[in-house]
Parts: sequence; C-alpha cells; structure tokens
Amino acid sequence: MLSDIDICRSTVLAPINSIARKAGLLDQEFQALGQHKAKVSLSCLDRLTDDSAINSKLDHPPKPPGKLIVVTAITPTPLGEGKTVTTIGLAQGIAKLNESVSACIRQPSMGPVFGVKGGAAGGGYSQVAPMEELNLHLTGDIHAVTAAHNLASAAIDARIYHEQREGTLAFEQRSGLQALNIDSDRVVWRRVLDHNDRALRMITVGKNEAGKSINGYEREDGFDISAASELMAILALASDLQDLRKRIGKIVLAYDIYNKALTADDFQVAGAMTVTLKDAIEPTLMQTLEGVPAFIHSGPFANIAHGNSSIIADNIALQLSDYVVTEGGFGSDMGFEKACNIKAQTSGKSPDCAVIVTTLRGLKANSGLYNLQPGNPLPDSIFNDDNKALIAGFENLKWHLKNVKKYGVTPVVAINRFPQDSDNELALLKSMVNTYDPEVSVEISNAFGQGGEGAIELAKSVIKACDNDDTFTPLYKFEQTLEEKIMAVAEVGYGASSVTLSETAKCQLEQYTKSGYSDLAVCLAKTPLSISTEARVKGAPTQFDVPIRELKLCAGAGFIYALCGNVMTMPGLPDKPAFMSLDINSKGQIVGLS
Amino acid sequence: MLSDIDICRSTVLAPINSIARKAGLLDQEFQALGQHKAKVSLSCLDRLTDDSAINSKLDHPPKPPGKLIVVTAITPTPLGEGKTVTTIGLAQGIAKLNESVSACIRQPSMGPVFGVKGGAAGGGYSQVAPMEELNLHLTGDIHAVTAAHNLASAAIDARIYHEQREGTLAFEQRSGLQALNIDSDRVVWRRVLDHNDRALRMITVGKNEAGKSINGYEREDGFDISAASELMAILALASDLQDLRKRIGKIVLAYDIYNKALTADDFQVAGAMTVTLKDAIEPTLMQTLEGVPAFIHSGPFANIAHGNSSIIADNIALQLSDYVVTEGGFGSDMGFEKACNIKAQTSGKSPDCAVIVTTLRGLKANSGLYNLQPGNPLPDSIFNDDNKALIAGFENLKWHLKNVKKYGVTPVVAINRFPQDSDNELALLKSMVNTYDPEVSVEISNAFGQGGEGAIELAKSVIKACDNDDTFTPLYKFEQTLEEKIMAVAEVGYGASSVTLSETAKCQLEQYTKSGYSDLAVCLAKTPLSISTEARVKGAPTQFDVPIRELKLCAGAGFIYALCGNVMTMPGLPDKPAFMSLDINSKGQIVGLS
Repeated sequence: MLSDIDICRSTVLAPINSIARKAGLLDQEFQALGQHKAKVSLSCLDRLTDDSAINSKLDHPPKPPGKLIVVTAITPTPLGEGKTVTTIGLAQGIAKLNESVSACIRQPSMGPVFGVKGGAAGGGYSQVAPMEELNLHLTGDIHAVTAAHNLASAAIDARIYHEQREGTLAFEQRSGLQALNIDSDRVVWRRVLDHNDRALRMITVGKNEAGKSINGYEREDGFDISAASELMAILALASDLQDLRKRIGKIVLAYDIYNKALTADDFQVAGAMTVTLKDAIEPTLMQTLEGVPAFIHSGPFANIAHGNSSIIADNIALQLSDYVVTEGGFGSDMGFEKACNIKAQTSGKSPDCAVIVTTLRGLKANSGLYNLQPGNPLPDSIFNDDNKALIAGFENLKWHLKNVKKYGVTPVVAINRFPQDSDNELALLKSMVNTYDPEVSVEISNAFGQGGEGAIELAKSVIKACDNDDTFTPLYKFEQTLEEKIMAVAEVGYGASSVTLSETAKCQLEQYTKSGYSDLAVCLAKTPLSISTEARVKGAPTQFDVPIRELKLCAGAGFIYALCGNVMTMPGLPDKPAFMSLDINSKGQIVGLS
Repeated sequence: MLSDIDICRSTVLAPINSIARKAGLLDQEFQALGQHKAKVSLSCLDRLTDDSAINSKLDHPPKPPGKLIVVTAITPTPLGEGKTVTTIGLAQGIAKLNESVSACIRQPSMGPVFGVKGGAAGGGYSQVAPMEELNLHLTGDIHAVTAAHNLASAAIDARIYHEQREGTLAFEQRSGLQALNIDSDRVVWRRVLDHNDRALRMITVGKNEAGKSINGYEREDGFDISAASELMAILALASDLQDLRKRIGKIVLAYDIYNKALTADDFQVAGAMTVTLKDAIEPTLMQTLEGVPAFIHSGPFANIAHGNSSIIADNIALQLSDYVVTEGGFGSDMGFEKACNIKAQTSGKSPDCAVIVTTLRGLKANSGLYNLQPGNPLPDSIFNDDNKALIAGFENLKWHLKNVKKYGVTPVVAINRFPQDSDNELALLKSMVNTYDPEVSVEISNAFGQGGEGAIELAKSVIKACDNDDTFTPLYKFEQTLEEKIMAVAEVGYGASSVTLSETAKCQLEQYTKSGYSDLAVCLAKTPLSISTEARVKGAPTQFDVPIRELKLCAGAGFIYALCGNVMTMPGLPDKPAFMSLDINSKGQIVGLS
C-alpha cells in the first residue's frame, strides 16, 4: 500500500470553493486560501440559524441542527488506535449513504509532528487533505495563539519592570497608568511555544549582567506547549468574537501584592490579544480524500487540556449538515468526558452517539500480559492470535462502553482493522461485545485501507444509533461545588476509590471558591495511557486514588484545571525525533511526513 | 485628515487576482489567500528569465530586468522619516506616469506593532493595503521563521539531554545515531520570538526540581526577536528553495567539546527547518491604495540584521516591472550599506538609483540643538521655523548624499513633507541641496497626503536618475579578509577614525578565519539613531571609534555579524505600550491600529 502522503498526492482534490458551496456556504461566507483551504466566516451562523427563513425558498434555507457523533476510543497505546482515521472514514461512509455530513477535527500541533507521533490527518484512504498543509502551519491559528499568549507574558514582565525601575518621574507620572503592584512571585501565566522542548519547562527569566537591571526582574517561569494555553481552550469554547474578547479579558495573569487577581483586562492587553486571534476564530475548511467537508479548528490536547475541537466549528457544521462527526482525544475517560462535561454543557449541544474505536492490538496491550515500555515500539507478537490477552484486554472496552452510557449516550463499537489482524480474533471480539451487550452495534472498520467504502456498515449503525431517544446526563452541573465536580469526574467518571488533594491544591480550591470561581467546570489533566493516573496500570482498574498535585484557574476558558500526578504540559523530543526524516526533494516536495 | 486605517478601509481595493494578472503573473503562478493577498510561486522566475522566449508571441514575453530603486534616508528620529510612505508613494507616482512599476517591502514585525512604533504599512494615501493584514500575521512567514528557528533550539537541547542521560543502553545504541558531544557552554543558537520581551534576553533553561534531571541540562540562553534570526536573513538572501535548504544546512548551531562546529545538517534538522519555511519562501503579493503591486517578503531589521527585503521578491518584481521601488531600513549607513555590500553582491543586481528621504523635522533633530530623549515625543517647537537648526542638521543630509555616491549610485533627495512644514524652510532646504550639489535632484513629496499624485515630480526625477550610467562600487569584495571588510564598513562606510575589537571579537575573528569563513560578508549591528555607534551623537560625526563587542558567525546567511556597542537584539516594551489602544469594536473591526 502507498504511504499516506503518496495516497494524498495521488488523489485529485476538488477546489475548496466547490467544497464550500456543496457544504451549503454562500460565496461571501468563506475566503479561499489557495486551492485547498478556506476560512469560514462566523456570519454564516446568523443566516443558518435565522428561524424566520426556515422553509423559505432560499437555495439553502436554514434547517434544524444535525446529529453530533463523537468518536472516542479504548485506552490507547502510545501509537493511537486510529481515532482520526475512523472519524474521517465514518464521515466518508455516511456520505456514501447519500446523507449530508461533515467532519470537525482539531489542528495538529507541530510539536508531535516533529517529535514522535507524526502527522494527525488520519491515514490511508481516510485523510484530511492536503495532509502536509494540515500538519504544518495550516492557516496559522496555532501560531496566532502562541503570539497572543506570549504578548500577555511580555506585557506582564514589562509592567513589573517599569513599575519598579527608577526614573526621574514615578511610573504613574511617566505612563499615566495606575500601578498594578504585581507580586512577581505570583505570575500564573506561563509562556508557550508549539514545540516539544523540555529545556523550556523550568526557566529563569529577566536575568541581568552583574550590576545591571535593564532586562527586567528575575523570576522563575516556564513554557508550556501551545495546545495547553488557556487561549487554545478559549478558542475552542467561545461562541463568537465578542465572547472571545470577554473571555480573554477575564483571564487571570497574576496576583498583586494584596492578593487580588490581575486579569488581562487589568493589563489592558485583552484587546490586542483578541485582535491577534481575529482570524484564528474562523474555522478552516478542508476536505477528506473523498470530498467530505472537514472543519479544522483549535487544537487542545486531551491529556493536558480539554481535547476537543471548537464549538464554533461544530455549530457551523451542525447547521450545514445532517450528521457531524467529531472526535475527543484519547480514551473516553479523557476527551469524551470533557466533550460531555465541559464542551456540551457550554454549547448546549450534547452528543447523539459515541463511536468507541478499538483495535485488537490495543485491547491486547490493555491485558497487562505484554511488557510494554513507553517509547519502545510494540512487539510484533501482539499481532499474533492471543485469545487470552484479547479476553483480558476486553475488560478495557467494557469499561469504556459503560463509561459512555453513564452520560446517556448510545455507543457504537468500531473495530479499526489492521492488515495483520486475524479473522478469528475479529470474530471473537465481535461476539464478546454481542454477549456483553446485545444492544450495542459492533462493526469492523476498513476506513484506512478502503476509505468510506470500508466504513459503510459502521455508518449505518451510527445513523441508527443517532435516532435513539437518549437523555444526556453530564456527571456534574456547573452550579455544584468545585470539590463535588472534581469528585464526580474522578470517582463517577474514572471509577477511582479516592481523591487526594495536595496541600497546595487544597489551598487553591479554597481560594478559588472564596474568589467566586466555584461555578466553573473542572478539567482534569492526566495520563491517557491508563484510566487511572498511572500510565503503567492497564485494563479496567478499580481501587485507585487520583492524586491532585495542583489546580490552575482558567477563568477565561471557564474551568479549573487540575493536574493529576506527574502530567507534563511541555513534551520533550525523543532520542531520535521524527524531524530527522523530514526534508524536501529535488522537486521541492516534502518527504518523510507520515 | 482620516486616520491611516480609516483611509485604508474607505478605499475600494481590486481583487488580488486582477493585481497579479496586471503585474504579469499567470494564474498558475500565484495562489490567492482571500481577496487581498496572494503567494507568488517561484516557478514564475523560470518563465520570466527564459531568454529563448524573449520577443516571442506570448502574452507576457520575458523582458530584461527593470531598474532597482532603493529608498533610504537621513539619520532618522525614533519616529522615522517616512521611508515606507515615500517608497509606496513613489511607486504610485511612477504608475501615474504610465510606467510599469512594483514595490518590494519587508513584512512588519509584530513586536514594534504592539510596542512603540505602530504599523509599518506606510501611511496616509501611500499605504500597502489592507494595512491590518500587513501588520498582523500577514501570511504567517515570520511565524514560520520563529517555528523553524525554535525547532533547531529544541533539537539542540534534546540532543544534549539524550546524549548525557543514563539508560540501560548508551545513546548510540538506543538511537542508532552518532554522539555529537556538544559543548553545552558553546551553544551559539539562541531562541527567538516575534515580540518585544526584554525579560527573555538572558534566561536559564533546563532547570530542574531538586534531585531531578528530567528537564535536561541547565545552561544560559536567551531569546532574540525573530527579525534577528539568521533564518530571516537566509530567507531574504536565498535564491530559491534548494539554496534555502543548503544555507540552512550550513548554519552553525553549537560547537562540540573538540571545538568543531556543529551545523544544522549535523543535527539532521535542516530538512525539517526547510519544510517549515516551504511557504515562507514565496513572496506575498498585496497592493498599494492605488493598485500598484507590492511584494512583501522577509523582515530583517536594519539595526540588528541586514535590513532589506528579499532577493527573491526583487528578482520576481524586476522581471515583471520596468521599475521596482524597495527600501533599506533606517539611514543610508544602515540598510542601504547592506543593500549594496551584502544584498547586491549576493544577488548580482545593484541599485540603479537611491532616494534619500529627509524631513525638516529630522534634519533639525540632527542639528544637536534640541534636547531629544529616546522614548519621549519630539517637542512641538521642532516644527517652528528654525533656520539655524536646519542649516546645522543639513550636514547630516550632506553625509548621506556623499555616502550614496561612494557606491557609484545616483542619489535623489525626497523631502517628505509634513502638514506643519513651512514653505520658507522647504525652499531653504532645496536651495541648500542645489548649492551643495547642482546635479542632485531634490523634490518635495506629498505622498502621505496625496498618494501618487503627490510624488509625481519625485517619480520623474527618479526615472531620470535611473538612466545614469553609474558604475556600482561596493565598499569591499567578499574575497578580502574579514578584518579588511569590517574596516571598510566602519572607516570608509561610517567614516570612523578607528575600530576597536574586544578581546572576544579578536578571538572570534581569528577562529572564523582559521575555520575557512573568511570569504563571508560582514553585517554590522549598531544604533540607527547616529552615524556613529552612539545614539546621542547627531549630525555628521567624525573622529569616532567603532567598538566591536562580539562577532557571530552566520554561515548560512553568508556573513559575519558584528555587534557594535550596546545593541539589543531583543527590544523591550515601553511604559505604555501601543497594544493598550488595540481592540475590536462592536462590529468586530480592529480599532487603535495606526
């Protein structure tokens, strides 16, 4: 079989203008950026939700919102179980049934592209195209997040410097501004870059040559990856540009020496940050290899952030299409939990169906019978028939089926087939699902090898599942206390037996509650490689504790962010990073991207 | 008069497709990015320089390259003398004479846009439009430079970490790579961001919590502004994508413990860096308010870098137009010197005419009779008639006239008129130029207030000057020794009486010469506010020393970079930064950008 990039290059793509028109956008509602990308104007939402125009004689009259299908997964191996492939393949499968459909996915971070994971455009015959555009820069939204974020950082350090430096006039007189009296030990806004760069996790800034102070005030700081920026979460959760502006204004950047929170509005930097994100708030329209419209928007990771693409992209896609396929990062304990508790409760639109992507390989990895080391390749033996491991690992799929049902959402199991998979094991897995829950559909997906054609049965089952009359039940309501909400995610969500807050976390909880932030959602950051907070614990663990090291207020995004265990918010590069194979050839084409 | 952004918004712009076609590009040679920006494919150069097709019956047959006009200036005040306004206005003036013309300018850095200077799109009726697009992100080229640059930084620290960390296997066995044995005290590649952020000038990276080493190896580092990145210089000096790849491969990132230079090719990161810059190598096509094609490409500052837009953009523009107006940053000692000694000797195309932009205000500021403090506004009194100051400051213009002639280039003086300027003083200045050198044309430019119409006389004089049969004479040839080249710029170029190299600089000079880098150009970084290296010294100084603190090898860009005096490669934000006035209004439009 051809490589992903070769499949992508050998596919004739439609001009993006015709994809946009086919999707139902008017010409003034999008701007083509070259042949294969377009920015979609939020103005289309006004037209598409204008109730008075429903049933009118317009070419594209408004229609009720479509069905929202969230693709999630079992607890993945570090290689992933093919969630994006299945998302794109499923959308293509639904299109093959002549239904109106689009896909909504996140913009890949360049950190993992250059690091270890490679691209994130799907694969085989189920890709968003052109994959090199998706994986590199795209339309610059992540760069805009990085720029807006670091503008606030520069604003903070400059203000500390200018308020403290000596001059012939005092700061207030020089600048006409009121002093903010920033506590330089309590700047809570770290910097960001879209790279895997562990050396930037803990740094000292504002250092000076001996006897000088021209570089500002020395303090401890660090960089996170841009996917972890609160601005990335805000971009994904905002409803429109004015909401974006309001949310940015509320971001807490630092505290003053009287313990008062200082926001981006206090620093008078929220306007400029919004201006920096003015294009980034528009989703990017691309297409799958089979011409299905794909909206790419925002890129929060699901381990260190809330892991779902944007509400704005979903809203546009839902008004244009009858079916919208999107994905929540990692297993259903991760992105899907946040799709339900954070995203759906913010947008008001809950999932109509959840597709749980599973692989034989991934279930066997969850058996605990293989000695898997993070960073090492999976052993080839994992592809051999091993019913014992498959049966043991099935516990993990059962857990995720139960988990999805907790939210009152109908699950469909998609077995993402690998070429090496044996028919016997596939049949065994299907029968185990049927035995465990006869009401759950389980389909083999050949989306990688066959595109939409390989996902037609899955598409049929998903459409059927969308007609279920489910009652969506998030694990908590925003009006509960912060502690109740954390407990709900950890105990009801993960199935933990206890939650242990560090002393720091306890203080923070108290402080945030006192300061009036108790009605925010909670966003737990943990390893994706286990349902528990320890990567080595496979399967369906019970009787485990969720240790919460630290809480972080994200007042603009609208959640309290909780770090469970040792979660890194800035990844590192491996011994032999993926960037080493990337280059251009003599024709100027990219080689080595997968 | 309307504000810049209001003038820009009230102007009806042509679709960029029609600008591109009018400029002579074929449809397959550009990609429109929305209505008002396009990326120009380098493939057009093959067609446009195909000698066999000259005089063919094609619609746009190849033609000989046009005339290159470099706009420079007197020694500027911190507010600038209107060089971009004059560049755009002059191009519009030439167009009014029905000549084929285009403009080539640099992409503005967002650092100064948010810091102190505001935008850099020209102003009044001589702007590149839309100005908010030009000033913010544009087509992402600076972000791509930042990303490619910091990828190399991450690669370096990751390699140091992995080669030193303990594991069950040694680094070579784990990775299959040869150890580079990097001397962590001799990493010469700093990081970059496109912000004014003084706190990042000197930092410590790779810090760890006590007893841990998971964040790498602690070392001193710092950030420069992206305009100072060697990659920005490479982008501006490369001839095509393959040349870009080769130059990036040669960049020296660090030294090993045996004192051997380690390049981007040694780190196997040059390919990925090139891939990251694959779109950035294409110039962005925009238009002036009067529909003249404007090519925007690369953004090196002229104080800390070589200060000229790209050779690729010039080459394309010269093949398409009979006249190409471009600018070199700051005074003729700065950008124009580098346009001649570095850029023209690299491209093989020398300037056909130099326009020296001057203002009454700027000359009076050069008199030394005003007490001007950097960071403070100019006193209103500088606009009152003050013949004494004007006559004293005229020495500075004389210096720049002489300087341009040193290179065998014909100068034209453009007096950029401000509304407050008095006719008496304008007449005095014209007569002083006429008396000093009757052969030099001097024209008043009303490009700001009247657009091209206000620059018609200037355009006529420039066209005439382009017909002069000049012999271009750079100050040095690349094959001279590094010391000779530095002396040539400092003594012949600036008119310094001496050059003092620090002990560090002396060692570096010896080392670079020994290592075979003696045939590189030299790029001196100094204050733009004086011909000397001290900002407070105005007018036309003589008998001054040029102290060279440090040299830096830029083997990819092709020059040795010399820091003269205290030059900051990362600016800081002022007391009350420009970002404070930026915001969006209730219609979602940007306000506060000028």
